[in-house]
Amino acid sequence: MPSDIVRQLDPIFKAKSMAVIGASRAPFKWGGRAVLMPLLTGYRGAIYPVNPREKEIAGLTCYPSVRDIPYDVDMAVIVVPAALAPQAMADCVAKGVKGVVMITAGFAEASEEGRVLQDEVVRIAREGGIRFVGPNGMGIYTSAVNLNLCLHDDVRPGKIAFVSQSGTFGGLLAEVAERKGYGLSKFISIGNQADLTAADYVEYLGEDDDTGAIVLYMEGFKDGARFFRVAREVIKKKPILMYKAGRTEAAARATMSHTSSLAGSDEIVDAMCRQVGIIRATEVTHPFDMAEALIGLPLPRSNRVAIIGSGGQGVVTSDTCESLGLQVPALDRETSIKLKEALPPHAPVPSNPVDFAGGMRGPLDEVQVADALARIDYIDGIICNTPHFHEEDNRDDVKTAVQGAEILAAIPEKYGKPVVTLSWHSHSRGGAIGDVMKKAGIPSYETPEQCARAMMALAQYAEVRRRSDGE
Amino acid sequence: MPSDIVRQLDPIFKAKSMAVIGASRAPFKWGGRAVLMPLLTGYRGAIYPVNPREKEIAGLTCYPSVRDIPYDVDMAVIVVPAALAPQAMADCVAKGVKGVVMITAGFAEASEEGRVLQDEVVRIAREGGIRFVGPNGMGIYTSAVNLNLCLHDDVRPGKIAFVSQSGTFGGLLAEVAERKGYGLSKFISIGNQADLTAADYVEYLGEDDDTGAIVLYMEGFKDGARFFRVAREVIKKKPILMYKAGRTEAAARATMSHTSSLAGSDEIVDAMCRQVGIIRATEVTHPFDMAEALIGLPLPRSNRVAIIGSGGQGVVTSDTCESLGLQVPALDRETSIKLKEALPPHAPVPSNPVDFAGGMRGPLDEVQVADALARIDYIDGIICNTPHFHEEDNRDDVKTAVQGAEILAAIPEKYGKPVVTLSWHSHSRGGAIGDVMKKAGIPSYETPEQCARAMMALAQYAEVRRRSDGE
Repeated sequence: MPSDIVRQLDPIFKAKSMAVIGASRAPFKWGGRAVLMPLLTGYRGAIYPVNPREKEIAGLTCYPSVRDIPYDVDMAVIVVPAALAPQAMADCVAKGVKGVVMITAGFAEASEEGRVLQDEVVRIAREGGIRFVGPNGMGIYTSAVNLNLCLHDDVRPGKIAFVSQSGTFGGLLAEVAERKGYGLSKFISIGNQADLTAADYVEYLGEDDDTGAIVLYMEGFKDGARFFRVAREVIKKKPILMYKAGRTEAAARATMSHTSSLAGSDEIVDAMCRQVGIIRATEVTHPFDMAEALIGLPLPRSNRVAIIGSGGQGVVTSDTCESLGLQVPALDRETSIKLKEALPPHAPVPSNPVDFAGGMRGPLDEVQVADALARIDYIDGIICNTPHFHEEDNRDDVKTAVQGAEILAAIPEKYGKPVVTLSWHSHSRGGAIGDVMKKAGIPSYETPEQCARAMMALAQYAEVRRRSDGE
Repeated sequence: MPSDIVRQLDPIFKAKSMAVIGASRAPFKWGGRAVLMPLLTGYRGAIYPVNPREKEIAGLTCYPSVRDIPYDVDMAVIVVPAALAPQAMADCVAKGVKGVVMITAGFAEASEEGRVLQDEVVRIAREGGIRFVGPNGMGIYTSAVNLNLCLHDDVRPGKIAFVSQSGTFGGLLAEVAERKGYGLSKFISIGNQADLTAADYVEYLGEDDDTGAIVLYMEGFKDGARFFRVAREVIKKKPILMYKAGRTEAAARATMSHTSSLAGSDEIVDAMCRQVGIIRATEVTHPFDMAEALIGLPLPRSNRVAIIGSGGQGVVTSDTCESLGLQVPALDRETSIKLKEALPPHAPVPSNPVDFAGGMRGPLDEVQVADALARIDYIDGIICNTPHFHEEDNRDDVKTAVQGAEILAAIPEKYGKPVVTLSWHSHSRGGAIGDVMKKAGIPSYETPEQCARAMMALAQYAEVRRRSDGE
């Protein structure tokens, strides 16, 4: 039997039908966007525009009220002005709508009158048994029914759920993530959290099969105690990564007017994250990089990393790994001697990081060394390069690189150890090689620091899981 | 009259003719690459391949020795095996070659014999009056004569000089910089620094008109005292930004074998950088982001920043600015009231950061607020969004966005204050808008953190210049 939260939120995130209350013909107004976006991006459900002044919008029959829709309505998107929101919510209750996404702004974040209005909407929804997202948000994206109310046109479905307390900015972050090739299961612009809060979404996502990792952009907590209580349970099943803003004075000033939430003490948030096992990021795009590793790779047994890469790359990766608390153990003599045979003659005797001295003879050299290192019992994870080729029109070269990618791709399953890669060439992120890596859950990053942070996140979450499994 | 260093290094970096000693027909060997790369990428000088076993390479006459070339040779690229390098250098002296780029590896970084061989090459060069780059490097790129020995095919000429102690990795970093749209004046893979050292390059670049900012990737110093002495002088003319690797034990281990240099104490390097005014970066791609702002913008009078952006963006930018030591001053009442008129009705009363509450009415709103903030005497620099448009086929929309870009572009000159922007849409990095921004020297970044770091670098370098101007 599904839990309460699944029963309440599935109608929103798996909506088979959707009304848009306040639908409009103007494509750049919210009322137009909320109809057109799902229509154009292939929402797999029915769309019912609602507007008493229109007969038809974008070829769809328009209804005067949600109550006039002659079909079942799972979910309603509300975009009417704030003053009309209580009536819209009451109509939803009357119609038997199961969930609401309220985009309308002008509530608690704007004024005292707005706060009163917001409380009224909450009261109506609670009495009518409706849970709702927002208000003052940008809406949602959910891969389950391919419903996209607010993100970039061709958002990529995937295993990362992104919960954002900032709408516009959250949407833009989702776009950056997409440009990096990461896929989303959900995007939730949580707005004022008048009803559903970050804690509710985390609880729901914990039970969502489409979601492998949860990324949060937060400015302040509505109910911090509950949030961390929920997170402590969910984290036993999937990793939670958070950027928490509002560390400084100017930011706190902005936060207050932005989402009417108090930033709270940063030290307390930090301590709670550590205790619960939430990975807190220092930059706003980092959680996505780390989530990409966590959704597809086995967790390391401990924090000992082997690094393969040319000179400076090995130096920088090692530096960053060690500053993040990972170990980069020196190799034993026997292994060094064995590896020496795989390296170019002028390469130094390999230690860790393993340096190819710029003289790799083929994409198989590196991956074979990676495979050899993955066998070693004191190595828990591998950082190396994505195999690449020089000339797209040299088929042998491409074939060998793909073969290399396949050897690398086999490592996680073969040894139960994670592999993350640095990919300097755009072709090794997309195309044949990108496909092999993606299928194996191996991320391809652009900088050594991203690789190190991903490995750190893997090690940190492994520790959280060991702790919780031992409970 | 040109200084010694200019007289010595101009023949290398402005070479009108170049011999390749050890030229080869194999395109992926160094001997082939050093001929083909300049040929294919449009080097504006003459190329003379040298190899006793070939008559012709890539359509060019091949000479048995550099001494057999019947024309003047400004510079020679040496790629023969290490054992033949002393003879090659002696031939260059005999021919009257003025400068050398030695790519050959297998010297001090490889073995004791290699060290002896390297000392021999240095002795021959010194006695013959030849300065040389390397050995054990990847070569150079120089925009002055469009000579590209080692970088990605279509490197973009620009004002950033990049000096790298790592060859392969340096080349790859240059590629990342290029993907971000940054242009290079020079790339110098310094290798073992047997003759020319980082200090020499910095001294030379200080006098190079093509160079506006100097970026260094360093692992260890050959002569740290001289490096910082030279840097102290050069920094009076242009900014120096450095990533110094080798902070941790594993990295030091890798550094030792990589470029035969000792990493040295990280604390000392830090202290020296602070004293001299070198901006030290914590991640390896950051110096490029910061240099992009420094090459084109006026320096701020102090460190007080105004931030314009939607909710979360303002919060994160403020957070990062303040953690980096910048100030984000609250606005006075009068300014707030005046700005309120430019904002959408539901936007909160503007403070700093200025929040458009996701409801910008057009690209002119933001830039007009930016212009108004730039007038204020307690604001020294602006962080805002690159103007953008929604639909490429809506010409009015595009026209307005370009108009917005022009208003923004005028600010640096009009008020003598720097503007850096966040550009979430790839079209506002390239195309018509990108052109306007680029021409005004305004960088377009992908994350709020990059914006904050760039502004920090501007404020930090302004302080360095005030200090040195006051000397």
